[in-house]
Parts: sequence; C-alpha cells; structure tokens
Amino acid sequence: MREPLSLFPGDDVLGLMTDFYELTMVAGYWSTGHMPRATFEAFVRALPPNRQYLLTAGLEQAVHYLLNLQFTGRDIDWLRSLDEFRHVKPGFWNYLRAFRFDGDVWAVPEGTVIFGGEPLVRIAASLPVAQLVETYLLTTLNVQTLIATKAARICDAAEGRPVVDFGARRAHGPQAGLLAARASFIGGCVGTSNVHAARTLGIKPVGTQAHSWIMSYDDEFQAFQAYADVFPQNTICLIDTYDTMEGARTAARLGHVLKGVRLDSGDLVQLSHKVRCVLDEAGLNHVKIVGSSDLNEFTIREMLAAGARIDLFGVGTDMVTSKDQPALSVVYKLVEIEKDGAPRPVVKLSAGKATLGGAKQLFRFHDGSGRFCRDVLAKADETLEGGEALMVPVIHSGKLVAELPDLTAIRQRARQQIGSLPPHLREFRGLADYPVGLSDGLRRVQENPVQGVQYDI
Amino acid sequence: MREPLSLFPGDDVLGLMTDFYELTMVAGYWSTGHMPRATFEAFVRALPPNRQYLLTAGLEQAVHYLLNLQFTGRDIDWLRSLDEFRHVKPGFWNYLRAFRFDGDVWAVPEGTVIFGGEPLVRIAASLPVAQLVETYLLTTLNVQTLIATKAARICDAAEGRPVVDFGARRAHGPQAGLLAARASFIGGCVGTSNVHAARTLGIKPVGTQAHSWIMSYDDEFQAFQAYADVFPQNTICLIDTYDTMEGARTAARLGHVLKGVRLDSGDLVQLSHKVRCVLDEAGLNHVKIVGSSDLNEFTIREMLAAGARIDLFGVGTDMVTSKDQPALSVVYKLVEIEKDGAPRPVVKLSAGKATLGGAKQLFRFHDGSGRFCRDVLAKADETLEGGEALMVPVIHSGKLVAELPDLTAIRQRARQQIGSLPPHLREFRGLADYPVGLSDGLRRVQENPVQGVQYDI
Repeated sequence: MREPLSLFPGDDVLGLMTDFYELTMVAGYWSTGHMPRATFEAFVRALPPNRQYLLTAGLEQAVHYLLNLQFTGRDIDWLRSLDEFRHVKPGFWNYLRAFRFDGDVWAVPEGTVIFGGEPLVRIAASLPVAQLVETYLLTTLNVQTLIATKAARICDAAEGRPVVDFGARRAHGPQAGLLAARASFIGGCVGTSNVHAARTLGIKPVGTQAHSWIMSYDDEFQAFQAYADVFPQNTICLIDTYDTMEGARTAARLGHVLKGVRLDSGDLVQLSHKVRCVLDEAGLNHVKIVGSSDLNEFTIREMLAAGARIDLFGVGTDMVTSKDQPALSVVYKLVEIEKDGAPRPVVKLSAGKATLGGAKQLFRFHDGSGRFCRDVLAKADETLEGGEALMVPVIHSGKLVAELPDLTAIRQRARQQIGSLPPHLREFRGLADYPVGLSDGLRRVQENPVQGVQYDI
Repeated sequence: MREPLSLFPGDDVLGLMTDFYELTMVAGYWSTGHMPRATFEAFVRALPPNRQYLLTAGLEQAVHYLLNLQFTGRDIDWLRSLDEFRHVKPGFWNYLRAFRFDGDVWAVPEGTVIFGGEPLVRIAASLPVAQLVETYLLTTLNVQTLIATKAARICDAAEGRPVVDFGARRAHGPQAGLLAARASFIGGCVGTSNVHAARTLGIKPVGTQAHSWIMSYDDEFQAFQAYADVFPQNTICLIDTYDTMEGARTAARLGHVLKGVRLDSGDLVQLSHKVRCVLDEAGLNHVKIVGSSDLNEFTIREMLAAGARIDLFGVGTDMVTSKDQPALSVVYKLVEIEKDGAPRPVVKLSAGKATLGGAKQLFRFHDGSGRFCRDVLAKADETLEGGEALMVPVIHSGKLVAELPDLTAIRQRARQQIGSLPPHLREFRGLADYPVGLSDGLRRVQENPVQGVQYDI
C-alpha cells in the first residue's frame, strides 16, 4: 500500500524551489557565456486597491534562502534526466553543483512602511545567480508583506485592544499558517492560536475551547466548570453554543475564577453590551470579553464606532489570507547590467509594465514632528541631505553583514512606522496620496540613454 | 551573528501543528476523564459566492498527518513549560507521549464534486483524539479544495486548451506553492512552473524565459537566438518586452526551430490575432501562442468568446490564491458522541452556525445519461437504493485501509466528475441550484431528540 506524501518542502530542496524558467535561463546564460554582473530590484508597481501603504516582512526567510541555497546531487541527477536539458553541455552540471549565492543584497528592514514603486530588496550578482533567486524571494516577500500589512490595518482598527491570530485552519497550508503568524505578529498581533508557530517564533500561544467542548458535556455549566477545574488561571468560556445570554449567565456562575468569555456568532455589538451587563451585575468587572467570527479591519472599526464592549479580538480568515486583497504583486526586475566593464541601466517597455532603470536607494523625509512627508527614489550611490536611506546592506559577497533583528524589535519598528504615517494614510478604503519622487540624479539616468539600452521615461 | 530562521514545518513537528485550544481541550478531556467515542464531520456550511460546486482535494496529506501524528519529547517539554498547563496532572504528559491517531476515517475521495452541507471527512475516535486533529485537517482540506476548485473552473474556461500553473511566486509561501501545484493539477492543469513541485509530484515542469533574459542581451533577436541554440526543442520566445508585433516578427526570423511565442501583456485577443498572422505568413503554422498575465476563468472565457488565438494558458496569481474567493470555510463539527454506551447525535445552535446531528453518509443519484441529479444526506449506516455512497473507509483503528490513488487517477476522476455536472453548474457566477436532501432516516434522527442532547431542526 502506498504511503501518503507529506508535502513539506525544506532546507534540503532549496535549489529546486524556483520556477523552471529560472533554471533554463541559468543554463542558457552559462551556455552562451553571458554572465555579466546584474542588478535586480523587487518592488510593487502600484499599491493594491484599498491599501495606502505596505508593511515589509519576510526578509529573514529570504536571507535564509540566499545563505543556504544549493543544488544537491539528487537535484542535479533529476534535472539532467529532463528532456529540456538534453542539449546543455555537461560542464553546466559542475557549475550547478558549485552554485551558491555569492552576490550582494540591500534591503528595506522588516517592519518598514513602503509605497508603490519603491524597492524592498536589491540584488547584485552574476546574471544567472541574480536570476535564479527570483521566484523564492518573491514568494517569501509577497506573502509576509501581504499579511503584515493586513494585520497592521486590523490592529490599527482595534485601537490598542489586543488582537490575536486565530487563522491556522484557513491559511493556505501549514507553512502558510506559520508565515502568517510571524507576519501578523510583526503587524501588531499579541499572540497566536498556532502552537507550532508560538514555539518556533516565541509568540504567546492563545486559546481555550471550541463549541465541541461545550457540546460534549451534558450541560453548559458542567462544561465550563470542568474547564475551570483544569485551567483555573485561564478560564475563558465560549458562551454562544446554545444561547449567548444564557451562556453569559451560566459562565458568571463560575464566579471569580472566570477570566473571560468569548462571543463567536451573532450581533457582537449588542451582545457585548448585554453580556457586559450580566458580568458587571455579577460583580465580574474584571472578566474580559473576547470577540471572534469573521472579523477584519472594516468590521472591527464599525463595531467599535458602534460602541462594542470587546476587549480582545481573535482574527482568522480575513487576516491570514488578506481576504480582500489575497495577493501582492511584488515583481523582480533587471534594472542594471554590466556592459563593456560598466554598469548600464536597463528597462522593460511592455504595455503597463514599464520599469525605471538603474540601481536605486530609497530616501524618506520626515516633518518636524517626525511624520513621514515624502519619499525620493535616488541612484544607489547618492546621498540626499535630510533623507533617511531605507535600504541597508544585508549580504555582501554571499556573507551576512547585517545583524538580524528579533521579532519583537521588528514589531516595535512596525508600530513606530505606522505611528509616523500621515493620518490620511491610515484610512482603510481608497488610495491616499503620498508623494514619491525621483532625485535629479536618478532622473538624469532615465534621460540620458546609454547606447544599446532601451529607456521608457 | 544570529542565523536566519527558515520556517519550514515538517514531519517532526506534527504534534504541535494545531491550535492551542485543541491542546487545552485534550488536557481538559483527559483531566476530567471525559473520553467518550466521538464523531466529527468536516464540511462547508454553504458554498462561497460564485461557486456552484467544490472539487475535493487534500485528503492524502490529511491521511499522512493522521498516520504520523505524535508528540516528541521536545514538544512535551515545551508544553510542560507553559504557565497554562501548570495545574494539569503529570500523568497527562504520559498520555500525550503515547498519543496516536487510533480512530476511524471515512472520506469522499479526492477529485470528487461536493456541495454545501456535505461532509468531506468523518472522523470517529475517543473525544480528545478526534478533537486534536481538527486544525491540521481543516488547513489541509481547505487550501487544496479551494485551489482545485478554482483550477477546475479555469480549465473549464479554457475548453480543452492546456493550462499550466505559473503561480509559485504568488502562492502564500513555498509550501503553499507546492500544495497549489498539486491541487491545480487535480483541477485539470497539465504542468507547473514550480520545479520542486514537478519533481515531488511527477508533474511536467514548464517554462522558458523571463523579460530579464531578453533585456540582458543587446537586442531581441540575439536573445531569441541564444535561447534557441541551447534549447532547440523547447524554443518558446517571450515577445512583449519591447513591442509585441516587432517581437513576433523577430521570433519568426528563427524559422522552424521556433516552437511557441508567449504574450504577457496588452490586449491578448487582438495581439494573438495579429501575431498568428505574422507566424502563419512566415510559414510557422506549427508555432503555438502562449498567453499569460493575470488570467482567470472569467478573462479566459471572455477572451475565447472574443476569438482569441491562444493555444496554451499560463495562470498564476488568480489560481494559486483563488483570488476571488481566497478562503474556504471547511468546518469540523461534533455530530455524535457516546453516552451510556450508545452514540447520540449532537448539534450546535449558534446563530447562523447550526449543525445537523448524527454521523452521515452522502449518496449521489445520477440520471439516465450519468449526470448528477441530486444528493441525499443519510445516516452513516443507511443504504439508499440507486444512490452512490460517496464516503468510503480510509483509516480503521489508526491503520490505512484504502489504496491511495495516484495524482493522475485523481485528476482523471475530477475530469469525469466535472463532466457529469448539470451544465448550469458550470456557470462561473451566481449560485445555481442543486438539490441536496435528507433521507427519512436522517430526518427521524433530527426529529426525535434523545434526552440530554440539544437539537435544531
């Protein structure tokens, strides 16, 4: 009988975790001896609808990939067996065996706010090396930036009330749940229901009981009491299994061992008021009300505006899938290539998909109170007075040169960044205006085409 | 300097890959000696908007989890260190050390069409065992069923033209890309750009070159020629980097080595016509036109209705994130529990979230031509004459009892199932009507409450 496949990728298959065209291009570059130094940048062309900013995340996993990328003998044997590679000269397999990421990486630190057109990462390496890493880098930056951004909006809506990741079951697989727990913590969450993520990332695990707990006992009080006996310091009762108000009164009978109640259905605004009254009348003012059930930044903001008495939000599906915008189009584009010994900017002219040539640095300018007021894209080697250079060196010649911040520091940075946004950028709908300009230096690069290179200004 | 974390879960951490409340409930059930045999079912309450059916996928990975689930010493040490478990008796850790899935599983085979309210999986085991597996089962079934369904729609729109998964970079992480490659193959795709998925799953890897390939050479013809030299049997040229029509003429200069051209931007309907003319005039009638660029079932159907001359579709973001419906709410509910030595049906009454009691079998009835005409939910032990019982035994007492079909057989089953749908269920928008009824036996279960158990009819 065949054993079922587990389908966990891992550190031992990093070489193959790429798109097939990256590998055919690498073989093509090698075969034609076309290996100039090249610079690529990852960026979103424009912010998605209803996003005023992105909160960057995922760099640490991208760095892990770059430092550990290699092809095993098994990978190479399998690639050699493919018909597509039949005409590739055997020397290529030695090249692939020795293949490592030996280039340079600059990046915007995790937990930084960025806008459309701004690079998250810049990679410089020999053309095949810089090319191959595209797919994995994009996957990693896309998903975590997507979810960190969504989580930041949700935490913003909660106005200081704690938000917890409840999304493991709705994330796009077990690893997606782990990545979502990391990204949502960066975005401001205080805990996760995902036990493996909690251990791996040092996040507080959160959760008490499901409806099945209540339903498996003869009556609700017996279920609550049984839980309180085992978890006297963590007694949060789910009260909506049969009737929420009756559930609230039943939970209140537990007395001071009760720490919280959870509402998971119905009109949370009205119910939270009525439940608060029941609890307060029973002298249980300390008991917190937890709200869950398909929450997001829109519903939380509405509920709080309507006066909901909820102390903690458990958010799942909408956050971990970034449901209203479930994909981010971070792209990875060649911006500079060595020719005749000198780096030359390059661009792509495809309809609606044009790119700005030249390796770039991103500068941010603050007003007197520390608020972000404008960004300027500049040449990588420029310095703009008064501007904060957001891209920092991370890897040099294949070696890590930056101290990786821990998750709490990244989360702290994110909170400070969100707090420095002009208030209109914290609206959830529409597209607010934030000025992103070009330095004179970068503009001149675009206006003075170098022979053999195409431009689109 | 700290090493970056890779964040790949794997077979060695299956025990912790669950929500925290599953573990507190398991500890609670054990602590109170409340371990009756319980039956849970996984189902969606209602189909998501614009979905007329779901195509099931992910069972094999769920089975892998159930057969391999355990807690390592490291897992247990970490759990014991948590404040929440301070009052749990030490014997619990021995229970957890010996914890295995020793229950029974019935499931609808992968590649089966199901509708709202119909169970995908039924699990019977002691209460804590059946409870703990909830999170992982849901994650696994949710993501693959979500994407297999989306892929089936996209392949349906392509009307027999091959569709290839190009989504690795936009999936929610590296494992999500792998799961999406599997699910989209089940849904009808013929290949994937994801190299690791191709090797792991035995799917054809597909891809040739990116815009960076073209841009890295001095001119487009040199880039095309270089590719053809290395891959003479696989020369598909990306022709939209500078100007699509000029690109088509340049590619045609390669002559008969050219196998295909790819359009990745602009108006694909118009461009495909003009490019077809250029190719045909050059005597290259054999050259295929590949279309990519934010495609989905809606755009493909529109393009083909408008007469697009596209032979193969590369689909990424919209398919691997199921972008218009990026989450599926498969839930896992207690439906039956042993009391006084007999199984008793149970239900949950929460507003809008009520469940139907009793362990169930799902029967499908076909019309004379083999088309699906109605489904009936019945008691697990019923037989309905003329109905096909869709839930089959998969695991008995913790042992695999079903032969797992290979991926090609699952894909074949899916194609046959989609082909058996009444035509109105293959519309992409709205919600078409498909009758799902209750057997008399199951109805009687709902109408005759057993003492101590709540009902909601």
